[in-house]
Amino acid sequence: MSKYNVGVADTTFARVDMGAMAINEIENTTSKINLIRYTVPGMKDLPVACKILFDKYDCEMCIALGMPGPDEKDKVCAHEASQGIIMCQLMSGKHIIECFVHEDEAETPEGLIKVCDNRAREHAQNVIKLLFEKDWLQKNAGKGLRQGHPDAGPIKS
Amino acid sequence: MSKYNVGVADTTFARVDMGAMAINEIENTTSKINLIRYTVPGMKDLPVACKILFDKYDCEMCIALGMPGPDEKDKVCAHEASQGIIMCQLMSGKHIIECFVHEDEAETPEGLIKVCDNRAREHAQNVIKLLFEKDWLQKNAGKGLRQGHPDAGPIKS
Amino acid sequence: MSKYNVGVADTTFARVDMGAMAINEIENTTSKINLIRYTVPGMKDLPVACKILFDKYDCEMCIALGMPGPDEKDKVCAHEASQGIIMCQLMSGKHIIECFVHEDEAETPEGLIKVCDNRAREHAQNVIKLLFEKDWLQKNAGKGLRQGHPDAGPIKS
Amino acid sequence: MSKYNVGVADTTFARVDMGAMAINEIENTTSKINLIRYTVPGMKDLPVACKILFDKYDCEMCIALGMPGPDEKDKVCAHEASQGIIMCQLMSGKHIIECFVHEDEAETPEGLIKVCDNRAREHAQNVIKLLFEKDWLQKNAGKGLRQGHPDAGPIKS
Amino acid sequence: MSKYNVGVADTTFARVDMGAMAINEIENTTSKINLIRYTVPGMKDLPVACKILFDKYDCEMCIALGMPGPDEKDKVCAHEASQGIIMCQLMSGKHIIECFVHEDEAETPEGLIKVCDNRAREHAQNVIKLLFEKDWLQKNAGKGLRQGHPDAGPIKS
Repeated sequence: MSKYNVGVADTTFARVDMGAMAINEIENTTSKINLIRYTVPGMKDLPVACKILFDKYDCEMCIALGMPGPDEKDKVCAHEASQGIIMCQLMSGKHIIECFVHEDEAETPEGLIKVCDNRAREHAQNVIKLLFEKDWLQKNAGKGLRQGHPDAGPIKS
Repeated sequence: MSKYNVGVADTTFARVDMGAMAINEIENTTSKINLIRYTVPGMKDLPVACKILFDKYDCEMCIALGMPGPDEKDKVCAHEASQGIIMCQLMSGKHIIECFVHEDEAETPEGLIKVCDNRAREHAQNVIKLLFEKDWLQKNAGKGLRQGHPDAGPIKS
Repeated sequence: MSKYNVGVADTTFARVDMGAMAINEIENTTSKINLIRYTVPGMKDLPVACKILFDKYDCEMCIALGMPGPDEKDKVCAHEASQGIIMCQLMSGKHIIECFVHEDEAETPEGLIKVCDNRAREHAQNVIKLLFEKDWLQKNAGKGLRQGHPDAGPIKS
Repeated sequence: MSKYNVGVADTTFARVDMGAMAINEIENTTSKINLIRYTVPGMKDLPVACKILFDKYDCEMCIALGMPGPDEKDKVCAHEASQGIIMCQLMSGKHIIECFVHEDEAETPEGLIKVCDNRAREHAQNVIKLLFEKDWLQKNAGKGLRQGHPDAGPIKS
Repeated sequence: MSKYNVGVADTTFARVDMGAMAINEIENTTSKINLIRYTVPGMKDLPVACKILFDKYDCEMCIALGMPGPDEKDKVCAHEASQGIIMCQLMSGKHIIECFVHEDEAETPEGLIKVCDNRAREHAQNVIKLLFEKDWLQKNAGKGLRQGHPDAGPIKS
């Protein structure tokens, strides 16, 4: 059975090794994915890292993990990276699941690591769903799913 | 009679199943459209979902439904998604009707669901108009039409 | 004598029929232009409308008319639409004259309609100048011309 | 000796004729440049004007001159124009020297005209340097050069 | 042994000669890189400078160095330059390491020069790692590395 190549793009800037968490989650869940990790210095290097993963490493999909710092300029960086990640997807016609955790999303180191672990794993599952179980996503449309924090759930009248 | 393929891109992030509302509206109105639903995790996955719907599923038009949360960072996400949706249209030369409802657009759950239902259905009608009744749109140019809220109406001197 | 096709892209969202004003102005001024009107629901549909006018309707130039509402999110929409309109021009190598009137640009309904009428007509004239009288524009370089409001005029020392 | 075509894109919106200043500077400095002037209504028309100067007028480089007004919406226009000018350069692989003077950069009409004249001429010199004297630019790397205002100069420890 | 061409794009606007620092660092570290320096007037000229370095000078990678001033409009310039640098990478499928130092990042001239020197050298090392030691980057994923300031380090629970 042939496997799909999936790229894992992450950074040395991040303060938690979310790439390893995503890889662990995918390897624990399926043997149908061949993972290719590509680590770059910062978030703004992620769009082209994914482009290279698509074009030179023949990936079918990517997950891009980053951790913006708490300052205003870090938010701008994250915005630029997100715009590039969307453009890269449009140029390639392939999905990049963006998994960013803002350093100020939790109040303690333990809390932040927990958010990272949860989001990386849940977005790794989204990669798997997009590749193999699109039906699952469709069944959960409008269900208020979240990654890294508890699901918001559907709004009930 | 041949049918047009129309893509319905929506998310598991949304807290109301607007995709189902749009689908219901289209199916109730016409039999000339073949609907293809593509559900992704979040709003920022919508641009490439539409690209795939155009390129791989041979869609003639798409409707992209999403529900940005109430925080500032959700507004930034919606902005990035919108930019990507516009870029996708330019690359494809085809329309994507964007149907976003901000979670803070209504004060009660009932109110929000009503906005969602109304906007999804009215934008579904816009898809139909763009495909089959461009004249209707032209006759309503400058009429202050709205989706999800009452029409603002034309300004009268 | 062959005519130029010029696209008029406008919206049902606008509360004043600026498309009709622009069309009236062009028809009153020249018989060398063949107008093709394309009405879409909202401002963010204008970039691809112009792309279609260039690619499928063989237009040489477009005018895109829209009316952003008074809220912050309307300003964001207008910004996204403008970015898309610029991108569309770069992809096509052809001009799109953007004619947006913000709903809060005047204090009375009469005032707003007057701004719309004036701007639509003056930008319609800009379309004509770009097609047939580039010299006129060059002679007026740096002259502080405005559309919809009185000219600011050149700065004098 | 063959000459280079250089495009001068400017606007009727500007309140100072900076295009004439740039043209005068280039003509006074070199006979190796053939200037092609292209005047458009506003700043947001500049990106495609440069695209046309590259594609239809065979220009090797452009200078794009504009004068954003003092309001917030003018800053947004300038931002959109700048993004388009950068995109145009990337699509063409050729330089566009952007020469914008904000109407609120000086406190008197005389001061503003002086800023315009100085910036237009210094950026015209930058066009010449990029075409014929790249070495000069390299020798001045990190020197804190400015256009329109006095050089900031290098930072000294 | 064949060498890689690496482009060094920098500006005359910057007030510290960071290009020289990056060049010195690369030359001191490896003989496998052939450096091509391309100096432009300002930050917004950097994206196309890198495009030219890729297309005409056959570079495999670039480093783009700039120094935004302290004002709000300088932040906007830096944002536009960053967006263009990301777009250039996507169009070329090659990395550009962005090395920007904001003029207000340090409180004294000595401090600022130190930030510049450190960041230019550490990002020069990132260029080398991306070309020759991708493994090193992967081993440091999630380690909170910084350039120009001390490493933030990994978050520990």
